Amino acid sequence: MEKKYRIGIDLGGTNVKLGIVDSDNNIIEKHMIPTLTGRPYKEIIKDIVDACFTLLEKANLKILDCELIGIGSPGTIDDKKGIVLYSNNFDWENIPIVDEMKKYINIPIYIDNDANCAALGEVVKGAAKGCKNVILITLGTGVGGGVVIDGKIFGGGFSGGAELGHTTIIVDGEPCTCGRKGCLEAYASATALIRDTKRAAKDKSSLLNKIPVEDIDGKTAFDMAKNGDKIAQNVIDNYIKYLGEGIVNFINVFRPEKVLLSGGICNQKENLTNPLNEYVNKYCFSGDKIYIAKVECATLGNDAGIIGAANL
Amino acid sequence: MEKKYRIGIDLGGTNVKLGIVDSDNNIIEKHMIPTLTGRPYKEIIKDIVDACFTLLEKANLKILDCELIGIGSPGTIDDKKGIVLYSNNFDWENIPIVDEMKKYINIPIYIDNDANCAALGEVVKGAAKGCKNVILITLGTGVGGGVVIDGKIFGGGFSGGAELGHTTIIVDGEPCTCGRKGCLEAYASATALIRDTKRAAKDKSSLLNKIPVEDIDGKTAFDMAKNGDKIAQNVIDNYIKYLGEGIVNFINVFRPEKVLLSGGICNQKENLTNPLNEYVNKYCFSGDKIYIAKVECATLGNDAGIIGAANL
Repeated sequence: MEKKYRIGIDLGGTNVKLGIVDSDNNIIEKHMIPTLTGRPYKEIIKDIVDACFTLLEKANLKILDCELIGIGSPGTIDDKKGIVLYSNNFDWENIPIVDEMKKYINIPIYIDNDANCAALGEVVKGAAKGCKNVILITLGTGVGGGVVIDGKIFGGGFSGGAELGHTTIIVDGEPCTCGRKGCLEAYASATALIRDTKRAAKDKSSLLNKIPVEDIDGKTAFDMAKNGDKIAQNVIDNYIKYLGEGIVNFINVFRPEKVLLSGGICNQKENLTNPLNEYVNKYCFSGDKIYIAKVECATLGNDAGIIGAANL
Repeated sequence: MEKKYRIGIDLGGTNVKLGIVDSDNNIIEKHMIPTLTGRPYKEIIKDIVDACFTLLEKANLKILDCELIGIGSPGTIDDKKGIVLYSNNFDWENIPIVDEMKKYINIPIYIDNDANCAALGEVVKGAAKGCKNVILITLGTGVGGGVVIDGKIFGGGFSGGAELGHTTIIVDGEPCTCGRKGCLEAYASATALIRDTKRAAKDKSSLLNKIPVEDIDGKTAFDMAKNGDKIAQNVIDNYIKYLGEGIVNFINVFRPEKVLLSGGICNQKENLTNPLNEYVNKYCFSGDKIYIAKVECATLGNDAGIIGAANL
């Protein structure tokens, strides 16, 4: 019998999302359980195993109908050994996820970093379908990075590479969660955009100043800029510059076909990507002498992680 | 007959250095000619071809004793097509080096970026011998980058990647030759160090102020710092910080086994590498949870380019 299904698992700090994909990388069934972090890892993994079987039951499939299970996990992953080397989200060190799961399930099981899986998902089924070389930058609480080179996840030499959010763009700049100052994450995350919007809102001449501070989010500056507020526009211009500088850096290093962005900020669509593409076309090394990647929004949303994991 | 020799060519803006390497990657014969840039590319390549035959004659070998010719060239290279896409040093665009050379020589000919070749040379015979994943940062007039992943040159997806010198570390910082501001090259090149030393020398309380401006070079600040001059030490501390930030960025992205430095500044040896290693160990992502690359000086000097090219 041909095994034409694969299971993809997106292991998150709040929920574990599971999906079965078919040979065309369509998700034919989904399931979700709470992660309940803080418990011993063996309990969490037992729950994930049970969730796999629930998922299979919903799809009326057996585990042996599946070719493999792929897991996208936050943190630093040793994909060869199947270990989470370090994850601050879970407070995990050297957790042998794959071996623990194999106690229960006897098909191939793979693991990689969640942002890398999302990048691979967009390559096989999303905004970068047909591309071989892609960078995904996730713009959320932090800034994550996924790199696909020649159709495969690029994690660097040893494990733990492609930490694109943790490259400095301003030495001695804003403090970053990683302990350094001036990382891209400290300027281009949604968290950073909200911080900068709140700072700008102190200016009484700005429309931002009329908004209760607790209501300011990643959308506020874009909204007020559309209403003609120059202070808000300045927040956006700076955000575009910071993110643009990061993207130019990554293009100069990786020369991908596309740079994809994901996260709530992508709801701004062309208001985000048009000025970014303009910036990138202006500043990439060798200018118009060589191909410059297009900046686009990812299209798979939360499914990217599941589909990518199923393609490990 | 076994072909146990290879020719490596280091194509520079001033000279073309050629060498024959044996199966142990020892250079058994060398030759050098002036590049005389500004001439039509076909003339330059004809001279390089002639130089290959002179080199072979010196070694008492024939071209058919050689397995291949490898060329390291400055600029953006399409290694698959054998083309220099763009080189500002030569004012070249889309120059079909390999095809032009093949008009004269009928053995396999390969080309890649010079810094990439130097990195590969250090991996096969130099400071990174036995390593699979290495970054080389060349600290000269500019800052070049060579990346070896899994024993092979990593040039990114499309051609022209690994431009490590052209990643911003300070948005809106010092102007860079590439048209951007704040690139690593604008802070960590020898040129940048000399600029910063000259600026610091304006302070009359510094020993640097006693030195004729035209005598200030990349060594001056190190020398005066050794003599206890605090202003000079501050120049060095800043230089270490800038270069350290760049190195941490590259480790977070590439996770190599070693980061090698080359260029005249490497004459400072431990005065350069000790504080850099301290910096890198302090700031790399995931801290001591995962392996952190060692920063060392390259050992092959000018031979790295020849040996690396011979290993393309």
